[in-house]
Amino acid sequence: MATALDRHIALVGFMGAGKTTLGVELAETLGRPFVDVDREVEQVGGATIPELFEQRGEAGFRKLEEWVAGVDLRTREPAVIALGGGAVLSEKTREELRANAFTVFLDVDADTAWERCQGSDRPLAQDAETFRRLYDERRPLYEHCADARAADAESAVLAAGGVHVEEEALARLAELVPGSGPVALVADAHVAGIHGPQAQAGLGTRLAATYQLPAGEPAKQLAEIEQLWRALRLDRGGTIVALGGGTATDAAGFAAATYLRGVPWVPVPTTLVGQVDAAIGGKTAIDLPEGKNLVGAFHWPAATVIDPMTLETLPEEQHRQGRAELVKTALLAGRTLDVRGAAAYKTAICLGDPHDRGRRSWLNLGHTFAHALEAGTGFELAHGDAVALGLLAALRLSGNEDGVRDVETLLDPQPVRADVERAWEAMRRDKKAADGRIRLVLLPRNGHPEWPVELPDGDVRRELERLIA
Amino acid sequence: MATALDRHIALVGFMGAGKTTLGVELAETLGRPFVDVDREVEQVGGATIPELFEQRGEAGFRKLEEWVAGVDLRTREPAVIALGGGAVLSEKTREELRANAFTVFLDVDADTAWERCQGSDRPLAQDAETFRRLYDERRPLYEHCADARAADAESAVLAAGGVHVEEEALARLAELVPGSGPVALVADAHVAGIHGPQAQAGLGTRLAATYQLPAGEPAKQLAEIEQLWRALRLDRGGTIVALGGGTATDAAGFAAATYLRGVPWVPVPTTLVGQVDAAIGGKTAIDLPEGKNLVGAFHWPAATVIDPMTLETLPEEQHRQGRAELVKTALLAGRTLDVRGAAAYKTAICLGDPHDRGRRSWLNLGHTFAHALEAGTGFELAHGDAVALGLLAALRLSGNEDGVRDVETLLDPQPVRADVERAWEAMRRDKKAADGRIRLVLLPRNGHPEWPVELPDGDVRRELERLIA
Repeated sequence: MATALDRHIALVGFMGAGKTTLGVELAETLGRPFVDVDREVEQVGGATIPELFEQRGEAGFRKLEEWVAGVDLRTREPAVIALGGGAVLSEKTREELRANAFTVFLDVDADTAWERCQGSDRPLAQDAETFRRLYDERRPLYEHCADARAADAESAVLAAGGVHVEEEALARLAELVPGSGPVALVADAHVAGIHGPQAQAGLGTRLAATYQLPAGEPAKQLAEIEQLWRALRLDRGGTIVALGGGTATDAAGFAAATYLRGVPWVPVPTTLVGQVDAAIGGKTAIDLPEGKNLVGAFHWPAATVIDPMTLETLPEEQHRQGRAELVKTALLAGRTLDVRGAAAYKTAICLGDPHDRGRRSWLNLGHTFAHALEAGTGFELAHGDAVALGLLAALRLSGNEDGVRDVETLLDPQPVRADVERAWEAMRRDKKAADGRIRLVLLPRNGHPEWPVELPDGDVRRELERLIA
Repeated sequence: MATALDRHIALVGFMGAGKTTLGVELAETLGRPFVDVDREVEQVGGATIPELFEQRGEAGFRKLEEWVAGVDLRTREPAVIALGGGAVLSEKTREELRANAFTVFLDVDADTAWERCQGSDRPLAQDAETFRRLYDERRPLYEHCADARAADAESAVLAAGGVHVEEEALARLAELVPGSGPVALVADAHVAGIHGPQAQAGLGTRLAATYQLPAGEPAKQLAEIEQLWRALRLDRGGTIVALGGGTATDAAGFAAATYLRGVPWVPVPTTLVGQVDAAIGGKTAIDLPEGKNLVGAFHWPAATVIDPMTLETLPEEQHRQGRAELVKTALLAGRTLDVRGAAAYKTAICLGDPHDRGRRSWLNLGHTFAHALEAGTGFELAHGDAVALGLLAALRLSGNEDGVRDVETLLDPQPVRADVERAWEAMRRDKKAADGRIRLVLLPRNGHPEWPVELPDGDVRRELERLIA
């Protein structure tokens, strides 16, 4: 299956591949439970794995393992599940994997695996020859089961979210867009002029038609979506590919979420803010005169294709706007991140909370202030600049001096001229508000977000006013 | 939890209540697997329940039962799960019920239960006095666990889908709309004049504002939804209540699906077609000049409130339109149905396939022809009249003479003047088409739908032409 949304992530691979270590890290990153099938087998069997091999023989052990793996894989709550090296020998387990999990093959070379396992009590790692024979036998099975191969948590998360980060990915769009049906390419008019031909060529014979949206925020006006809806000629076997910045992917994604009550879509973000933030996680939206993003839908992409080469043609101003989201993500993660790392962080948060009912709200760090400033400047202020200022206010309210210094150093945000009352009114009408009370994400220490935090209106307004020249 | 969408339906109640019988029927109706926890306990324990009581004592049996019930309730695939009479004694099982199931209490009086159980080998039904003591002890536990109480499959299905069919329900709207937050009432302008005041009074202090949509199909124009989106003032704690016929609930439901990326909604259908069909199952949509329902979303209602009293003020013409859907549902079910029965049938189909990937397509019996005729008459033909004709064509193609006779007798559809070419073009552009091939629901025998069926274009077109005068 294409993504791990609402599904388990199952880790398969040979002994010594590091499935447990990776599984624990992955579960922590995603906010999901971690299940180690080997440990569960020991619990259910009432003995250690070497003892179970001794008592029941390998066949008896496999039967128990198959049963335990089946129960774990059929469990409702999406988890990260590490399977024993031999679990995929069972046809039944392979079926359960197909039905219930996004399966990641954690590869390791035979020498490394043997180094890690020799001298342990693993029953099948007692001599090098048997070990290598098993390695050669099982490898094709892992490849056969796997939806993706990964070497670390970052690549596992990206694969599980259907996110491909790959230079010159545009040229491979026909392969990277899941399925084999026709594709409607919806592109930002400006971006179409730069990357359109390459994307069209990459889609090859799957390209059914190309549509343009105006560059920038005007793409998210209802009149534009209406034109797109009316022009589209897709049946449910078709896919919408959205090429452009965050506005184009928001708008085309909303069209995909609603056309024929939902067709699959693939965002192909071409700006920094799109690649690290806007195009990941399935939030789509359009604007109303009453507010940005007031109308939208959650619609997880069938895949997200990120081609970092497209950033090379990006004007410096656009880079600057994207850096604010990159810095925000790094502050939340508590470490420096490149585009791929930021995309992985956001993917993990969103996979863990696709409908924005919990930890996904962390991503709004600084955004309640940012949206207020946008409203207070009549939407003259660029989003990235607004976010940079918003981060400053949120970190000041968090008492996080390191974070404040990071933002000042990396983004250097300057107060703007804005209508304070309009900005304040927008804060109170924020989507994240409950019963009119403003709820903020705070970050007392880098890497440690808190949400929801309600502060006295006076404190919040004071910080808002500090952002306004 | 409010509905059983994507959740198990768990049946609890005293021994002799008929949980297994009802469970089997319910599972069949919903197209879900049936799980009898007692039988699973016997399998896992390797002995009958009386034997397990004997071997392990009641405490040992309960421990095993708790474990099995936990595994069943945590299973991913939504099922109908019947629990043993004493399973709810476990706090852990009650927690699993709350987390993973919509729980239905199947009530029975003590005398009936005793009559059914005495003389059996049930370990706790060996003397009348103990039996009655247990009955009195457990009853409050069932009530405490239950999301709903039901006496038969029909009421269990309605409860599980969040559908309330109740005379004078309008007066109780404040209670029947889940949650306690503010409500935006969106009403068909015509219906608002008749039932608006009653609905407003029923919502009491929860009513935040009332909005009107034009009567009939114009409600589904984008310009109307735009006005509604712009006027709405709800945060995510608010609920939209849609009052009116299928057009009002389609349109207001689409607004609910997309406003703030989705707020809860409650349709309150006031027409026959709304009560037996349009308002049930979470399909929402608006029209484009290019076609009806081309834009929409799946958005399962938090509840659906059907007040049959509202039908009393319905003009005969509206009744006639609704009867076509009622007859369609009865043909699919293979038995005569009243409003409540038809609502339950549709609820069951939709709960079993909320996103229209399988059996839900059955409900399109006759509709591909109906949509074609609507297009071919420039949308002059009323939907019910179109469906009546569409049923005739589908049943003729199915070779179902009984069904043809039923439709002729009950609905007496007459050929209409229409543009054949436009109608034919619409059939080929139908949402259910795949790669341009028309896919039909057929009904070779009443109660036995088949889907998808692809027939030669010539046969389909011939039947279409027979409907046109």
